[in-house]
Amino acid sequence: MTNRDAPHSYLIAPDLSRAGLTRAVTGTGPEGAELSLNVVEERPLTIYLNSREIVTAMTIGDYPEYLALGFLANQGMLSADDVVTGVEYDEDLEVVVVRTAVETDHEAKLARKTRTSGCAVGTVFGDMMEGLEGLTLPQTTVRTSDLFALAHRINTTPSLYLDAGAIHGSVLCQGDRPLVYMEDVGRHNAVDKIAGWMRAESVDPADKTLYTTGRLTSEMVIKTALMGIPVLASRSGFTAWGVEIAQQVGLTLIGRMRGKRFVCLSGAERLERDADLANLPDEPAKSGRKSARAGVSSAGSNAS
Amino acid sequence: MTNRDAPHSYLIAPDLSRAGLTRAVTGTGPEGAELSLNVVEERPLTIYLNSREIVTAMTIGDYPEYLALGFLANQGMLSADDVVTGVEYDEDLEVVVVRTAVETDHEAKLARKTRTSGCAVGTVFGDMMEGLEGLTLPQTTVRTSDLFALAHRINTTPSLYLDAGAIHGSVLCQGDRPLVYMEDVGRHNAVDKIAGWMRAESVDPADKTLYTTGRLTSEMVIKTALMGIPVLASRSGFTAWGVEIAQQVGLTLIGRMRGKRFVCLSGAERLERDADLANLPDEPAKSGRKSARAGVSSAGSNAS
Repeated sequence: MTNRDAPHSYLIAPDLSRAGLTRAVTGTGPEGAELSLNVVEERPLTIYLNSREIVTAMTIGDYPEYLALGFLANQGMLSADDVVTGVEYDEDLEVVVVRTAVETDHEAKLARKTRTSGCAVGTVFGDMMEGLEGLTLPQTTVRTSDLFALAHRINTTPSLYLDAGAIHGSVLCQGDRPLVYMEDVGRHNAVDKIAGWMRAESVDPADKTLYTTGRLTSEMVIKTALMGIPVLASRSGFTAWGVEIAQQVGLTLIGRMRGKRFVCLSGAERLERDADLANLPDEPAKSGRKSARAGVSSAGSNAS
Repeated sequence: MTNRDAPHSYLIAPDLSRAGLTRAVTGTGPEGAELSLNVVEERPLTIYLNSREIVTAMTIGDYPEYLALGFLANQGMLSADDVVTGVEYDEDLEVVVVRTAVETDHEAKLARKTRTSGCAVGTVFGDMMEGLEGLTLPQTTVRTSDLFALAHRINTTPSLYLDAGAIHGSVLCQGDRPLVYMEDVGRHNAVDKIAGWMRAESVDPADKTLYTTGRLTSEMVIKTALMGIPVLASRSGFTAWGVEIAQQVGLTLIGRMRGKRFVCLSGAERLERDADLANLPDEPAKSGRKSARAGVSSAGSNAS
C-alpha cells in the first residue's frame, strides 16, 4: 500500500528539537576567526541480553530500546521465536537490558568474530551469514517512480545530517512513503534501530524498501536481507562483496541514486520502470548530500 | 623537513594498475540500459599473532603485511618493545602471521570489547584508551599553507576512490608532501596500513600529519594519537567524542577542509597561519570528493 496523500507523514522522523543529540563546539578557521558548529553526540550504550553483557555501542542516544532489540536480532542473538519479556533502559547507567522468556544460545556465537568493512574490529559475521541460508525474499514489485520520489523526500527532510553532518541515516519506506527515518553515528546503529522498531511493532517487511545514506557494503546487504526487506537503495556506491551477497540472496540492490540516475546491480526483476525521467530534475551540482561517484560507463565503453 | 621540489613524489601512492583491487560489474540504469562500473574488491584476511588467530578483516587486499602489523600495533597487541621476528603472508590461505620474539599478553585484552562509531561490533577500545594515558604529542608547528597544499595534492592524485568510489583513504604527510597514500574499504584498514608501514620503516611520527577522507571519529583520533602523529586533518566532519579525545590528548584536529576553508577544533596552537587565502581558489561546487557539510556559523550567530 502506498500513501500518496500524505507522503511526508513519517511515523518517526529526525527530531531536531530533542535535547542532547548535538552539541555546539567552538573552533577557529584558517585565519583564526572563531567559529561555532554543531557536532553530533556519541554516548556509550551497553546492551545486555538477560544477564549477559553483549556489547557497548557508541550511539547518539535516541531510541536505545530499538537499538538494543534490533542489534540483537540482526546479530542472530534473538530469533523470531524468542519471546521478549521486557526491554529496560537505564539512562543514568547507560545500559539497556533485553529479557527473553527462555535464555538464548548466543554465548557460543560470541566466539566467532569477523572484522568487516568500515568497522574497527568485529562482527559476528559467521552467524549473520548462517541466517541467510535458505532465505527467500518476497518478489514485491518496486516502481522506479516511487524510488525517485523517496530519494527526493528523504533528502529534503530536516535531519541531523543537514544540521550537523558526520552522521548516517537509514529510512524504512513503503511505496513512495518514507515511514521511519533513523540517524546515528554508525550506519549500522541506524539500521538496527529500524530493525528494533519493526520487531517491536511487528511490521511486515515484504512490501518495504530500505534507503540508506551509506555505502552498500556486505553488512548492509546482510542486515537488510535478515530483516526480510527485499529492496535496498542508496545514494552511495557498492562494494564487491555487497553486490555478491545481494545477488546470492536475490535482494534488489540500487546504488548511486542521484537526480534521475541510479545503478541496479542485483534483483532488477522487481523493478517496474515507470518513472518519467524526462520530467524528473537532475540533481543540482551543489546538493546537501554527498555526491555520487564517477566511474559509471555504458557497457563496453570506458568513457564516463 | 618539507620537500617543495618534489611535492608529488609519493613513497607509496594508489596503484590503479595493480590487478585485483577492483572488478567490473554490469547492472542497469533506471530505464533498463545496461551499465558497467568498477567496484572495489573485498577479501578476507585473517591476522594471526604468533599461534593465535586475532581477527578476520575485510580488505581490498594490498599490503597485507602492513595491515597486520599496523592493526596489532594500533590495538595495543604489539607494543614498541615487542620484537617482530617475521611477518608471513600466505595469499592462498588469505592469512598473515606476525611473529614476535616473546609471546605477548594480548589474550586477556580480547575479553573487553566496545562497539564504536561506524562499526559493526567491537574494538578493543579499553586498551586503545589505556594506551593514551600519559601520552604527550610533540609540539610540531604546522603551516596552514602546507595543509591547503596537501589537500589539493591528495584530492587530485589518481586513486581507487576516483576510479571506483566507495572506499576510504588515509595519507601520511610531512610538511606539504604526501608520503604514503593508502586506501581500503574501511578507513581503519587504511590507517592501519600506514601504521604498519611506519613501524616496518621505523618512521618518526613527530613531524607528520595524517590526512583522512573520512569522519573524525573517536577511533580515528585515538589511532592517530597512538601512532604519535600530532595532527589529523579531514575533508569530513567531527563527532563529539572525537573532538573530546583530541582536546584531552592535545592533538591538532582539523575538519571540513575544503578549498580555502577548514575548522580547527583542537590543538590550534600548533598552527602557523601563513596561508594566503586571497590567492587560494575556493573549491568548485562540483568536486570529485564528497562535499563538506553546512552548519558552520560565526560564533554567536546561527546564520550559516
